[in-house]
Amino acid sequence: MKALFLLYEGYVDWEISVLSGIFKMTQMEADTVAVTRHVRHVGGFKVEVDHLLADVDPSQYDALIIPGGEPLPLAKEGNIKALIQAFHQQDKLVAGICGGTVYLAAAGILEGRPYSTSIDSDEHLAFFERERRSAGDVTIDRKVITSEGNAYVEFAIEVSKALRLFRDREDELETVLFFKNALRG
Amino acid sequence: MKALFLLYEGYVDWEISVLSGIFKMTQMEADTVAVTRHVRHVGGFKVEVDHLLADVDPSQYDALIIPGGEPLPLAKEGNIKALIQAFHQQDKLVAGICGGTVYLAAAGILEGRPYSTSIDSDEHLAFFERERRSAGDVTIDRKVITSEGNAYVEFAIEVSKALRLFRDREDELETVLFFKNALRG
Repeated sequence: MKALFLLYEGYVDWEISVLSGIFKMTQMEADTVAVTRHVRHVGGFKVEVDHLLADVDPSQYDALIIPGGEPLPLAKEGNIKALIQAFHQQDKLVAGICGGTVYLAAAGILEGRPYSTSIDSDEHLAFFERERRSAGDVTIDRKVITSEGNAYVEFAIEVSKALRLFRDREDELETVLFFKNALRG
Repeated sequence: MKALFLLYEGYVDWEISVLSGIFKMTQMEADTVAVTRHVRHVGGFKVEVDHLLADVDPSQYDALIIPGGEPLPLAKEGNIKALIQAFHQQDKLVAGICGGTVYLAAAGILEGRPYSTSIDSDEHLAFFERERRSAGDVTIDRKVITSEGNAYVEFAIEVSKALRLFRDREDELETVLFFKNALRG
């Protein structure tokens, strides 16, 4: 199985690094895509993506993951909306955390769904149906997962569960406790 | 202030992503360095570093941070040992997490010190004074900080405290609780 991470300038790496780590531990492959060949994450590391947006074939992937950051410059881009819609229409998992959820809202795939997000400015909230916001920090609604940024471990676990990456319940619980630094014995 | 992250092929990004995030939140600058221009982190993202090893001047930085991964191919490299020793001799903070601690041991700066590490294979442990291993998951010994990989949040907090990045105790505690997803109200 293979996931695609949609990256962009200033994306928040710590919101997806645990998920990316679990993918590695569970032999889930991962590619990166962006509008430009290079992007810097919020901490300043320069990432060279594997693919440009125009070169991506959603049918080759099982999930699309979008980290937080400042989504406004790109959320309305037609080719980004088309990518998200293509994953969704092909019944792939689509997951966004923090500002990454704005892309999902802008692409229309949160219509009629509950969702979680850390976003609280009016210009970001304009993309959402405000009354459908969940009180939970991660929301799973069929093939769409949304999350607050601070719930990055819980987000990683829910995405991994949806992709059936854990061997069993014990494996899932141990992974939670490992990343919470609460695993003993 | 400015930190330098020493990266290498297969480095574990989630062990330093929270620290890198706190650096961004506290206006601490960060550069990356490696032996080669490009490295892939353990999750597969390709990073183009800011500097090659030969081009780095330790006097321009306040801290050297080394993430985990598989250190054996490079831990004995003379130029990596020299970089670590230069930071240490200039009284800069030197911090290693998980396999990153092997570089510190190989460079000789853990001699006579307590340390923490997740490493448990004999070929890795050969670099360490085994009897000095701490039972704690993070060890702070003057300007040297070492950590188990699972304690990546605690490691980030201790490095940030050593660099005096938090405004006050409340700021520090809120940061811990944010990254543990336990901040309420």
